[in-house]
Amino acid sequence: MSQGSGIGSGIGSEFDLIDRYFKPLACKDAGALNLGDDAALLDIPSGQHLVVTSDALVSGVHFLDSQSPKDIAHKVVGVNLSDLAAMGAKPRAVFLAAQFPKDIQENWIAEFALGLGQALEETGAVLMGGDTVSTPGPMAFTLTALGMVKTGQALQRNGAKSGDVLFVSGTIGDAALGLLCATGKLEENAFLLNRYARPQPRLALGQALAEGGFATACIDVSDGLLADVGHLAAMSGLGLTLRADSVPLSDPGKANLEFLEVILCGGDDYELAFSVPPNNVSKIKALSAKLDLALTQIGVFNDNVPGVRVVDGAGQVIKFATDGFKHF
Amino acid sequence: MSQGSGIGSGIGSEFDLIDRYFKPLACKDAGALNLGDDAALLDIPSGQHLVVTSDALVSGVHFLDSQSPKDIAHKVVGVNLSDLAAMGAKPRAVFLAAQFPKDIQENWIAEFALGLGQALEETGAVLMGGDTVSTPGPMAFTLTALGMVKTGQALQRNGAKSGDVLFVSGTIGDAALGLLCATGKLEENAFLLNRYARPQPRLALGQALAEGGFATACIDVSDGLLADVGHLAAMSGLGLTLRADSVPLSDPGKANLEFLEVILCGGDDYELAFSVPPNNVSKIKALSAKLDLALTQIGVFNDNVPGVRVVDGAGQVIKFATDGFKHF
Repeated sequence: MSQGSGIGSGIGSEFDLIDRYFKPLACKDAGALNLGDDAALLDIPSGQHLVVTSDALVSGVHFLDSQSPKDIAHKVVGVNLSDLAAMGAKPRAVFLAAQFPKDIQENWIAEFALGLGQALEETGAVLMGGDTVSTPGPMAFTLTALGMVKTGQALQRNGAKSGDVLFVSGTIGDAALGLLCATGKLEENAFLLNRYARPQPRLALGQALAEGGFATACIDVSDGLLADVGHLAAMSGLGLTLRADSVPLSDPGKANLEFLEVILCGGDDYELAFSVPPNNVSKIKALSAKLDLALTQIGVFNDNVPGVRVVDGAGQVIKFATDGFKHF
Repeated sequence: MSQGSGIGSGIGSEFDLIDRYFKPLACKDAGALNLGDDAALLDIPSGQHLVVTSDALVSGVHFLDSQSPKDIAHKVVGVNLSDLAAMGAKPRAVFLAAQFPKDIQENWIAEFALGLGQALEETGAVLMGGDTVSTPGPMAFTLTALGMVKTGQALQRNGAKSGDVLFVSGTIGDAALGLLCATGKLEENAFLLNRYARPQPRLALGQALAEGGFATACIDVSDGLLADVGHLAAMSGLGLTLRADSVPLSDPGKANLEFLEVILCGGDDYELAFSVPPNNVSKIKALSAKLDLALTQIGVFNDNVPGVRVVDGAGQVIKFATDGFKHF
């Protein structure tokens, strides 16, 4: 872990802070070399693919400056490990490059490191390195996550077949509604706020899908359900019909159906959407029971019309003001 | 590669820009999955350690906003791969998380991607993923580099022994003097400016040291020669006497000896400093000839006095206003 050109020039204590708060998280793996070397060393067992993903989160863009340091740490970890979950990978190590404003307080870093430790503990990944630098701009974190999946078992986006059923885990739209709560546009609701603040990567589900060979394609729902299942369809060269009234909602979600577009397009769910051949559907229902996690059938892939058609219970197409299929 | 919450909302073309400029760099490895998936897949041969490092570079802190996009790309790559060089690792893949201001121009990204491709080409690493997000603050890049080294051969910082000789590659201080040129504090000099703008990671040297088992400890000179050899001494629990008049200087360096402190403490050299048992010194001289790279003996480790003592030709201790041993 490098501390070059770092925070706290002139304060003189930040170097020690990093040692105090981040080094203990890294000591869980000898390959982290106690964060004292140029890089970390890892051994990857044969028969395993290494799975690597890297996500940057900027204050004011991907999280709110007003959020607690612990929540921000949970989000930084959750967002990244969700990408490992979507490939069916088991987390192994993370590398954190933190950009802190020069006036960062010791207490903020201490709380952030505490949240980071908790979030990693929940997922089985270990902090093995990174960088800590100062920025004249907003706080930002880039986490690179390394995981492993048995050779040949990685879930990808491009494997869906016509006739495959689209499933989604958990409930959709809670985080987007939580953001409305956090920004005062919706009445405060602890459940929704928590779903926004602390995404839970669906690691057990992703690994079970990969090991069982049950799914033909998988993606995590980060940019919004419609956009992400649109990626699955596009990468697989298929069309998709999605039943809006099948999309699983939490009770607070059901109570805010006037925000249907926010729910379907808002993002930050970090649930998994995956395609399943019809003859594997019963296995998904069994997996749902085993994991105690709702897995709901919300659509069917076809080779008729490219793109996602959203229909209501009567089969009528629903149009949205925002394009749910592209983020830009 | 994820493009979520990305640049150019409303412009509508940035998504395509990324596809156009970064995807071609990633197509060199099938495991990059065409940047279309959640993460990349890599196979690590057995008998190899994976070596991982991650560095963040922020505009105005680690590079100048006025530098060319190509130079900035070279710096982002060079700084990171220098950490792999210091471990003796062979580069394999990089993951780039880019934070761009919303008003970034297509031409800037095109030039940056061109520089990135060149810099990677020189080192043998392939772009395999990353992230592209917008920031209301300064441009910033986090590169995570993955390399490999034979199990048991990785160079570390803590292995120097009393009596070992300290070597350094190339010439020292050029980049720090180049920064003085770039900021108008020293007369413009193309050689010095280039040394600042385009660090050359000493990959062949690091790999040769690791394979040959010639060195007991190694570090790259990023925070300044005195600080970094101070790390080697401290991590090895030793003292070090360094001869200031032995430090290898370029001709422009020799012409600016009034900046001796800048030369010894200024950083950004990205040369390797490494400790060698006396009976291996002849092998280092042979390696220098083979690599056509100056490798110069500049000090000796001892177990007398912790810390680095800098002495002149007459053995008199030289003191500097800034503490060369710590960056904060």
